[in-house]
Amino acid sequence: MIKTITLIGAGNLATQLGLALSKNGIGISQVYSRTEESASNLASKLNCTFTSVPSEINTKSDLLLIAIKDDAIMELLGQINVEQSFIAHTAGSVPMSFLTRYSSNCGVFYPLQTFSKSRELEFDEIPICIEANTLKGLKLLEELGLKVSKNVKEVNSDKRGKLHLSAVFSSNFVNHFYHLGHQVLAKEGLDFDLLKPLIKETAAKVMDLNPAEAQTGPAIRFDETIINKHLKMLERQDELRKIYSFVSESIYKTHKKNQNGIF
Amino acid sequence: MIKTITLIGAGNLATQLGLALSKNGIGISQVYSRTEESASNLASKLNCTFTSVPSEINTKSDLLLIAIKDDAIMELLGQINVEQSFIAHTAGSVPMSFLTRYSSNCGVFYPLQTFSKSRELEFDEIPICIEANTLKGLKLLEELGLKVSKNVKEVNSDKRGKLHLSAVFSSNFVNHFYHLGHQVLAKEGLDFDLLKPLIKETAAKVMDLNPAEAQTGPAIRFDETIINKHLKMLERQDELRKIYSFVSESIYKTHKKNQNGIF
Repeated sequence: MIKTITLIGAGNLATQLGLALSKNGIGISQVYSRTEESASNLASKLNCTFTSVPSEINTKSDLLLIAIKDDAIMELLGQINVEQSFIAHTAGSVPMSFLTRYSSNCGVFYPLQTFSKSRELEFDEIPICIEANTLKGLKLLEELGLKVSKNVKEVNSDKRGKLHLSAVFSSNFVNHFYHLGHQVLAKEGLDFDLLKPLIKETAAKVMDLNPAEAQTGPAIRFDETIINKHLKMLERQDELRKIYSFVSESIYKTHKKNQNGIF
Repeated sequence: MIKTITLIGAGNLATQLGLALSKNGIGISQVYSRTEESASNLASKLNCTFTSVPSEINTKSDLLLIAIKDDAIMELLGQINVEQSFIAHTAGSVPMSFLTRYSSNCGVFYPLQTFSKSRELEFDEIPICIEANTLKGLKLLEELGLKVSKNVKEVNSDKRGKLHLSAVFSSNFVNHFYHLGHQVLAKEGLDFDLLKPLIKETAAKVMDLNPAEAQTGPAIRFDETIINKHLKMLERQDELRKIYSFVSESIYKTHKKNQNGIF
């Protein structure tokens, strides 16, 4: 069983993951971050030691859990000796094979969620996608995952990459469309609060319905009158106008296809 | 006070609005729909009469509430005499002035939400945007709105149009991105359920944070390694690839601007 963890990273994911593990009885023994201030801040929340010096990283704990930017993972692993350590990264798009050159015991522990430093989250339902190059490692990561979530799933590197891609569409891009809606309102002096019940319900709908079934609005109806009004409103905002046309067209095409040319 | 309503329409919005009003003690006296079956179905839920013949529409009730497609509003009003009636439509993008040629008592009653026939909603927090051409009419619509929601707001036609546009971005387009995420997963045999905690949290985040502050993901970090991996995954899916590039670029530009060229 994993009892002590060296946590590599002090960003959004490292913070929330560290807090969740610690709350569920898994000791974080040390936090490493490139910047001493971040390392120290998170360590004080987790009540553990910290360092910003790679050579001081404690490689003797039961797991080195790496939660830093994709490009920084290899840079760091090139500077420390983890041959005898169990190491796992937390990235959606980094294949496990990137770790095998550094240690013969490695794996992946990827929580599929959007994290902010300031928002503490219930991990309970967050899918934790695990992968390991030994059965023993897989079992250890599974046990660890089950400490924080009831939703632990073995997912290979290829599928995890696709999962990450789908998350970009359904979360990062979605949030950008909240932002674009916000922008339209702000220009009119209208409050973003007006959109909140709509945003909530749009998300709640797809908990029960397939998103294709849940689609509403002018594009799926091919309501040219409204679409043209909206394009006219965006006359002097080239980028928004382009995005509006492009996404409307994509909605229209999707549903035209699904509904056997009903449009 | 409005005591009886003739409900024009039997689609998603008419159904949910009819149910909400009726549940809150406002009598729907008649439902009109172009198709008899829809009219009859909704009327049976609301326990009232129905018709599919324009000349049989009861124009004597306290309010004719028009919840049909934008283009159909004028077509219908051309066929009936509502000169003596109080009429209000429920559309985001139709100016109130479109009604003044048919009656001297008119207004707008626009609930800002996405409706499906099958999902009954709590109206409590839904913003109801009202407008009327007389003070008396405005007061009547306000009273009516307060029967179903605590969030009734006077909004003129111009601002309502912008509100509708922002709703297209933050709801219709958002739902399409859920669908695109769903598509990526379906191709891999992965379950859409995996994305649900992420979708919930992405929406929950902007209840507290400004969407620009809530943005995460490869595009805002300008993580070219991941972006290029994702574009490669979409190699044979031209449309998805184009959308991916386009939205990523828009995120990048937005935040580059906001952060004074930190990228």
